[in-house]
Amino acid sequence: MTDRIHFEDLVPGDVREYGRYEVTREEIVAFAAEYDPQPMHLDENAGAASLLGGLGASGWHGCGILMKIVAEGFILNSSGMGAGGIDEVKWLRPIRPGDVLSARHTVLAARPSRTKPDRGFVDFRFELLNGKGEVVLEQRCGVMFGRRVPGEPA
Amino acid sequence: MTDRIHFEDLVPGDVREYGRYEVTREEIVAFAAEYDPQPMHLDENAGAASLLGGLGASGWHGCGILMKIVAEGFILNSSGMGAGGIDEVKWLRPIRPGDVLSARHTVLAARPSRTKPDRGFVDFRFELLNGKGEVVLEQRCGVMFGRRVPGEPA
Repeated sequence: MTDRIHFEDLVPGDVREYGRYEVTREEIVAFAAEYDPQPMHLDENAGAASLLGGLGASGWHGCGILMKIVAEGFILNSSGMGAGGIDEVKWLRPIRPGDVLSARHTVLAARPSRTKPDRGFVDFRFELLNGKGEVVLEQRCGVMFGRRVPGEPA
Repeated sequence: MTDRIHFEDLVPGDVREYGRYEVTREEIVAFAAEYDPQPMHLDENAGAASLLGGLGASGWHGCGILMKIVAEGFILNSSGMGAGGIDEVKWLRPIRPGDVLSARHTVLAARPSRTKPDRGFVDFRFELLNGKGEVVLEQRCGVMFGRRVPGEPA
């Protein structure tokens, strides 16, 4: 499976855009009922009276949609091994019913593991874009990837 | 509704524990299929071969469960107005089928808005605990709350 994207292929400065995900009102309300039952994610009037200015998706729902797009468009075709956490999430704009979302990632840094010669760490900025090309969510995190050719630890 | 929890009630150093959420295998797999279809969240064998050491919930699923517990045990009974993002998430231990989770929050800092006399910002550490009392997820963020008595901006 060396044709998959490996650590060596991820070079600081790389930018990629991909994916298409249409969000429905039903999905926004269903996610909120399950995981974030704040009124502005469940009801138009409550949304209009909130800082969202209308019904808008839970920020965590946006994180899940971004993960889904990134998994299908990138990670599942890579040697990715997972992430230990998230460095930052910014919820910049509301996600509305009918929005068509896509992802953009930028490689910020890459370094081989200091202890394991078969892997390395890559820092990303992931952005979730709406149909107008506006960034609705920005997220930074480090992901571990297998190396195509194990080498000397850094 | 001045009996709800307001900005004035949230004092640095305050710690609260609350909630009970039992996670099923079905829910772990359903969330992953929808939002994080990486094999270690979908299949026992893939989980065992991964850094999770067995089937484990998506980290984003853990964030959603923590949000749900915090919403029902705290935010929905407060003047909370929302958060603009997350300062950090650490996924410290796997979340397994059958785990019974609860939440703990610590108030780290609180400051009135500099521009709006009716609100203030509170920084929290939110932790998701398993049935052994181990922290499986740690998250820091700032949340905006209405003030019970509008006052001078700081």
